[in-house]
Amino acid sequence: MKKIDLNCDLGESYGIYQLGRDKDILNYITSANIACGFHAGDANVMRGAVALALEKGVKVGAHPGFQDLVGFGRRNMEISPAEVYNIVVYQIGALQAFLKAEGGKMNHVKPHGALYNMAACSIELAYAIAKAVKDVDEDLILFGLANSVLTKAGEDVGLQVFHEVFADRTYQDDGTLTPRTAKNALITDENHAINQVINMMTKGIVQSVHGLDIPIKADTICIHGDNEHALAFARNLSNALNL
Amino acid sequence: MKKIDLNCDLGESYGIYQLGRDKDILNYITSANIACGFHAGDANVMRGAVALALEKGVKVGAHPGFQDLVGFGRRNMEISPAEVYNIVVYQIGALQAFLKAEGGKMNHVKPHGALYNMAACSIELAYAIAKAVKDVDEDLILFGLANSVLTKAGEDVGLQVFHEVFADRTYQDDGTLTPRTAKNALITDENHAINQVINMMTKGIVQSVHGLDIPIKADTICIHGDNEHALAFARNLSNALNL
Amino acid sequence: MKKIDLNCDLGESYGIYQLGRDKDILNYITSANIACGFHAGDANVMRGAVALALEKGVKVGAHPGFQDLVGFGRRNMEISPAEVYNIVVYQIGALQAFLKAEGGKMNHVKPHGALYNMAACSIELAYAIAKAVKDVDEDLILFGLANSVLTKAGEDVGLQVFHEVFADRTYQDDGTLTPRTAKNALITDENHAINQVINMMTKGIVQSVHGLDIPIKADTICIHGDNEHALAFARNLSNALNL
Amino acid sequence: MKKIDLNCDLGESYGIYQLGRDKDILNYITSANIACGFHAGDANVMRGAVALALEKGVKVGAHPGFQDLVGFGRRNMEISPAEVYNIVVYQIGALQAFLKAEGGKMNHVKPHGALYNMAACSIELAYAIAKAVKDVDEDLILFGLANSVLTKAGEDVGLQVFHEVFADRTYQDDGTLTPRTAKNALITDENHAINQVINMMTKGIVQSVHGLDIPIKADTICIHGDNEHALAFARNLSNALNL
Repeated sequence: MKKIDLNCDLGESYGIYQLGRDKDILNYITSANIACGFHAGDANVMRGAVALALEKGVKVGAHPGFQDLVGFGRRNMEISPAEVYNIVVYQIGALQAFLKAEGGKMNHVKPHGALYNMAACSIELAYAIAKAVKDVDEDLILFGLANSVLTKAGEDVGLQVFHEVFADRTYQDDGTLTPRTAKNALITDENHAINQVINMMTKGIVQSVHGLDIPIKADTICIHGDNEHALAFARNLSNALNL
Repeated sequence: MKKIDLNCDLGESYGIYQLGRDKDILNYITSANIACGFHAGDANVMRGAVALALEKGVKVGAHPGFQDLVGFGRRNMEISPAEVYNIVVYQIGALQAFLKAEGGKMNHVKPHGALYNMAACSIELAYAIAKAVKDVDEDLILFGLANSVLTKAGEDVGLQVFHEVFADRTYQDDGTLTPRTAKNALITDENHAINQVINMMTKGIVQSVHGLDIPIKADTICIHGDNEHALAFARNLSNALNL
Repeated sequence: MKKIDLNCDLGESYGIYQLGRDKDILNYITSANIACGFHAGDANVMRGAVALALEKGVKVGAHPGFQDLVGFGRRNMEISPAEVYNIVVYQIGALQAFLKAEGGKMNHVKPHGALYNMAACSIELAYAIAKAVKDVDEDLILFGLANSVLTKAGEDVGLQVFHEVFADRTYQDDGTLTPRTAKNALITDENHAINQVINMMTKGIVQSVHGLDIPIKADTICIHGDNEHALAFARNLSNALNL
Repeated sequence: MKKIDLNCDLGESYGIYQLGRDKDILNYITSANIACGFHAGDANVMRGAVALALEKGVKVGAHPGFQDLVGFGRRNMEISPAEVYNIVVYQIGALQAFLKAEGGKMNHVKPHGALYNMAACSIELAYAIAKAVKDVDEDLILFGLANSVLTKAGEDVGLQVFHEVFADRTYQDDGTLTPRTAKNALITDENHAINQVINMMTKGIVQSVHGLDIPIKADTICIHGDNEHALAFARNLSNALNL
């Protein structure tokens, strides 16, 4: 079984507001996506998150999002490719400076929330992100939804790309995620979720909601660290994968 | 007469809001301090300002300020040295990424408004800024008020430092600027202002409001580019100094 | 010829940033839509705009928009009807307080930018706005695009509604505005624009881009005050209508 | 024993960020100070907090603060009396609209954090707040630190004023609070804290850190609801006072 990457969002607190269990989740993941102050995170939080991740030996990536703190960057918005390029450049740079100051190096970039989702469907936004990452540092790895236009755009511009899969989400026959609004969008049984990941990694397939075997590329798995349950699952998944 | 640097704030527009005459002032200055999104500037504006400055061959610096858009970063606020360090790191990084994307290199850092003023008096804040600059890129030049604790802090941490002087402000016997609230704070006669600069550069002195000759170090002159009058003065000063 | 209302956005400055010619345009309009701090305007600007409008005898309305200062509230965004209701309530209240403090009374509410456009098409958002206005003050007049779902929603909840028309925009055969992206979206000939308004008022019709006479209800005309040309047109239109 | 008011800050969540135990603390308090979107709270949170407080029969007040979300309104900043007036008017109005929409009426205004502290010392800021409250609704009660210039300003402009005391803070010989930076600033023994409140109410005195009996006016007590311990204390204090 090839080594797989486990990634989680980090540094999502803001000012007095605490979000996530950063210290705990860092025990189980191999890559941390750190918010960059637009949808979450502030300069103090970013520095703390970078220092913590480096101390734990976890790879650090930028997690740029829309400038929408009140909506946590989860609301789609009308935005030009040029502006997406610029907000991604800005946020990568801000985080890079903390890595420089703390003696680390940025490993990857994973767009957040609505930016991630829109870039999975819009070829223009996908290329805007891919070019932004390339122009700031061509050695960065771009994380995107497996088989989406974002991973395609990343490969086209010559970036190393990580196809991201989800342990606890179900897949459609065409390889896309079942929308969150559907009843069967989430996998609630933990063993089922862990098996889905193992099948993705060992066989390169995922079973769709209709029982079909769908080919899927899985380089990194998205997990969460915002509550006890999520932490327990992360620990179990980490153990199952011998990370 | 040694070569002197002429610096001006740039990229202070925000969204639909236009501020400054960036294209025009770039004809007369040698260093541009570009706002980084906290007190002014947004990602689109920053990219445009960086591209414009590079095209004109003007050196580019970061102009970090307080996170106070409505107050344009001009209001003193209670802030810890640790937070000052972090907001300076963040803003330098954000601008560096645009320089990387546009094929340029950052030259200097000049704190903005209330951050500049507070750092001229507070040794703790001054060191926080100096260390932030050093930790992100030790080759950056720190611009600070001539003879202030900020320039001292910069020199102490081993940075190259530019002592900044003002063409159109008067000086006290102790070498400090006459506060803006005083009647005689500003020099309104253009020739007087130009002569003050030439004396600073050739003789290393400035005449105080009481007629005393005060020693002053002058590496860079702060000018403005936000209206016709300011532009005309910049042109005349630039000509007088053979820039 | 019935009396018609001329409205213009006001109070769109923010902090140091100046936008619009508030003092000048107030000479030609009968209703002012004052920004409420979300897409433009701040507490200082709002108070100044309210005082100025009251002094000139111009009716004051709230101009609520999306919480998107960098996009000036012009970018469509995914937003729930409940949140639209809440941001409209909030912004109306904020402006009402300045009217109370300055001895005036709010006359109307006109949504801004993307909120205006989305509410012209989405029945859910239209009702959210109409209910918000009604719940805060049932005597307020709701301004909306003529013949849109917003004006319909306003009428349904029992509000007085002003159908808004545009002097300088062309209309399609179905009574909708020609999208701004089309070549013939704007009327650049001033007399043509003034005649279009007079036909709307006296005959209740507008000629479509294909030459058809389209029935239209016109209670208020949207004009602009952000430059010399706009001010000149406002003055000429105001004179032509004997306001 | 006269009836005393127990007040607590409410509605301090923001977007995805949760803060406080609003539902629980409402069982023990008689007045809620609801954040108005500047230092905490957003339009959705405000509406929810207003609805909850009205449902529980708790009086609702506005809790205006500085426009400093990242600092939670706790950082002193340079601000003019005119701007303080305007930001207080704005925030009161925003909350009033939710009260109108939910069928309630505003009871009081209590400035938050740094605004509260600065207004306790600065006569100009105190009058700016008092006038803002008066101009928006002269029936509102102004909450301020007991014996401070804020309560004095409120009384001078003709407002009803509630002198606020603290159960868990110690007092100096001159009746001021021991600064939080001092070792003995907080009362950690619960019975001690409850007795301090009862002495304030029944005898009109508080014992200073040096054992002196200091006269104090106590109309309302500030308590907290952000953790289990705070909730338990609130319940015990509420019971001890027969609220």
